[in-house]
Amino acid sequence: MSDMTRSLLEDLKAILGASSVTADAERRAAYSSDETLPWFDRHYTADVVCFPENTAQVSAVLKYANERRVPVTPRGAGTGLSGGAVPYMGGIVMSMERMNSIIEIDVENRTLTAEPGVVTSEITKAARERGLLYAGDPCSGDISFIGGNVAENAGGNKVIKYGSTGAHVLGLEIVLADGSILTLGGKRRKDVTGYDLIHLIVGSEGTLAVVTKVILNLLPLPARVTDLFVPMRSVNAAMRLVAAISTRGGVIPSSVEFMDRKSIQNVKDYTGMEIPHSEAAAFLIIQMDGMDRRQLWIDVERVGDICVELGALEVFVAEDRNARDRVWRIRRLVAEEEWTNSMALLSKEDIVVPSGSISEFLAELPALAERHRAEYNAYGHIGDGNIHMTIFPMSDMEPDDLKKASNAMCADLYRLVKRLGGTLSGEHGIGLKRREYMNIFLDEAHIALIRRLKDAFDPNGVLNPGKIVEG
Amino acid sequence: MSDMTRSLLEDLKAILGASSVTADAERRAAYSSDETLPWFDRHYTADVVCFPENTAQVSAVLKYANERRVPVTPRGAGTGLSGGAVPYMGGIVMSMERMNSIIEIDVENRTLTAEPGVVTSEITKAARERGLLYAGDPCSGDISFIGGNVAENAGGNKVIKYGSTGAHVLGLEIVLADGSILTLGGKRRKDVTGYDLIHLIVGSEGTLAVVTKVILNLLPLPARVTDLFVPMRSVNAAMRLVAAISTRGGVIPSSVEFMDRKSIQNVKDYTGMEIPHSEAAAFLIIQMDGMDRRQLWIDVERVGDICVELGALEVFVAEDRNARDRVWRIRRLVAEEEWTNSMALLSKEDIVVPSGSISEFLAELPALAERHRAEYNAYGHIGDGNIHMTIFPMSDMEPDDLKKASNAMCADLYRLVKRLGGTLSGEHGIGLKRREYMNIFLDEAHIALIRRLKDAFDPNGVLNPGKIVEG
Repeated sequence: MSDMTRSLLEDLKAILGASSVTADAERRAAYSSDETLPWFDRHYTADVVCFPENTAQVSAVLKYANERRVPVTPRGAGTGLSGGAVPYMGGIVMSMERMNSIIEIDVENRTLTAEPGVVTSEITKAARERGLLYAGDPCSGDISFIGGNVAENAGGNKVIKYGSTGAHVLGLEIVLADGSILTLGGKRRKDVTGYDLIHLIVGSEGTLAVVTKVILNLLPLPARVTDLFVPMRSVNAAMRLVAAISTRGGVIPSSVEFMDRKSIQNVKDYTGMEIPHSEAAAFLIIQMDGMDRRQLWIDVERVGDICVELGALEVFVAEDRNARDRVWRIRRLVAEEEWTNSMALLSKEDIVVPSGSISEFLAELPALAERHRAEYNAYGHIGDGNIHMTIFPMSDMEPDDLKKASNAMCADLYRLVKRLGGTLSGEHGIGLKRREYMNIFLDEAHIALIRRLKDAFDPNGVLNPGKIVEG
Repeated sequence: MSDMTRSLLEDLKAILGASSVTADAERRAAYSSDETLPWFDRHYTADVVCFPENTAQVSAVLKYANERRVPVTPRGAGTGLSGGAVPYMGGIVMSMERMNSIIEIDVENRTLTAEPGVVTSEITKAARERGLLYAGDPCSGDISFIGGNVAENAGGNKVIKYGSTGAHVLGLEIVLADGSILTLGGKRRKDVTGYDLIHLIVGSEGTLAVVTKVILNLLPLPARVTDLFVPMRSVNAAMRLVAAISTRGGVIPSSVEFMDRKSIQNVKDYTGMEIPHSEAAAFLIIQMDGMDRRQLWIDVERVGDICVELGALEVFVAEDRNARDRVWRIRRLVAEEEWTNSMALLSKEDIVVPSGSISEFLAELPALAERHRAEYNAYGHIGDGNIHMTIFPMSDMEPDDLKKASNAMCADLYRLVKRLGGTLSGEHGIGLKRREYMNIFLDEAHIALIRRLKDAFDPNGVLNPGKIVEG
């Protein structure tokens, strides 16, 4: 341990108490990566990891670090997919795991107030017990923290109807780099008192402030949910259907998920599962929710008719728990399957394309993959244009070559996305993983403005340095 | 005309053409006030008014003004209620009225792209003709511009279900003070590529950038709308009902409007209109919408039952156009009535209180009014806690005394609002009118951060100077 690290450790122990700081090598390693790990060509490691228990402690650590110019990387559950919680410049990793209380559920105001270290599904569960819905729970909700969801503006399956995490945030308590504690918003659904700093903090990946409290909006809990599993004749027909559900059917479903043929084939090969019409060109899961079975059924029938008219090979209606679980198991397995191959990945994508351009996007992919000697499957939250792709090299490659091939393919892919009016990331964030591609999507003046905003919040550059844009 | 003004006029004529700039005294006066006019103790007047016709012209004017440190106040339709469009420091008023095209309605992607000078109701109408809903239309939609709505984050009757203007903005084109043109977002409903600058610009009252293009989200157009007019036994019962509609009824209505007894009495006195149960303590208008009469009726019945159970004296159901117009005419007249007295106003309020604290707030008002020798009526968008109040002095007052009395009463009122977890403005903005009260609601560190953000966007302080926080 260097003298500097030793002194950092001692100082933090004095601020937080000995049991709230560690420089143990194993724990430092464990707290220095996230689920983006295989992506990076080197490891970044914190000098110390600390575990503040309240806002005052967060403030004290930041004030200290800011004065001494020590980098601080705030960390949720480490489930991120872009390296947001990776301590790129070393220094302090600040784990929020001990700030894990649901402070209040206020039924009358339909709000829930939580510390950042609460596992998101706990929030969903607590709301549900009071007859209310937290609609921001992303796919990772069983393992991610609400603070991480806020930092990344997490998405998920239900964004098309309910919006990403940010759409549910009514208030935040934040600590700035200099240790000042600010309260933004509150239990209110309208507020124009000054700039909207809440939504500037949401999605800022811990580069502007540390979130120490979150006030969330809750909704009435839909009593009924129904899923349709819809194998489609063609990708084009699937995309026409996605638009028609809303424009002709008048319904914004709670989910519209897409899986291409390859995704479904992978699930079959991987699990031996029987999937009806598994040779279809595209598959949709359409979820609708409502308070009342009669009301919901009117939507289901209207949407079902449109599915058949626009090229569904069949429409499977899943109303009860078991049937619905079977449908969503397929979707989950599509995402899981990738992990078996994760060590030889060219890329795992989170791009967004306007819904109306998805057909064109998917039509251009085979040639692009061919050019880069890659194979891929595509799936995701097609209702809001957010497509995940897992892309593999066709043949084994040395790590260095893999990295080069990946960079070349990504740059090519992103230029296509950009041309179609899309963007780099819908819900996984930029972090370290995507920052080198930001200039494909954002003008120089835009990136310069991002840097000036970062300076306005964090003039010494101690908060999660190196993320979003290169330093 | 001073030499400086003459040179400013000539320079702008060279940039924009002679027909796009004026220094005519009458027109300068007309373009230098908004509907907050009676509020200010002095008039502020632009030196010149200009009318750019496209983004390049906006950019050229800003570049010029930024280099010469000339203040620029962007202006929509001048319907603002906080002095946002008032040229506090003189200089240039930039009217956006000639940038008034709806550029595109994209049905497949459910988006509408417009220039800032389009009257908001034109947007609503254009969307409706394609079977789609623009749900951000505020109460002033027939006269305000979409650019002004974005600048102020306008609210309205439907925020409880659909959100304020910002909730509908998917993309913006903006021009920074130095003339750089940035495109933020686009036709996509998920985007974490860099900081969320869109929602920082929304509600920033023209202090950070000039908006030159707006991409709006559209929704399926509800085919059916039903309004309930509900006189209530007591204010407390009305507030319990507002919560119960969502928590027990499972419905988020498209509007929940409140009027107190005094508001209804004013309408009766002013118009001679017959209003049933006009002696009731409180009145609610509850609006629900849906695609299908059968579906909607299930909500109407459920909510109607809860109304009766929780103290409704009667529930009037308005389904057809005429009946619905009669209901909303009452609500509109409540807001109109104030104008007949507007010259002797102590205040016109836009405060927000968490729904659960509104009963307590309204219960404390009579004593507060008594202390300040004031009378008031209260009404507004109670579903999201946004209460408008029109407050008059009990007796005639000289302008100076009126101003002093108003300041004393506002400070007292705002401390009450603050204590109940509320805020200064829900939808009208801070502008000039409320900036002196910002320190009641925001900490010093928060206001300092607002100033730093302003500097990051506009280092020379030329964009709408003096607004939101004092210079």
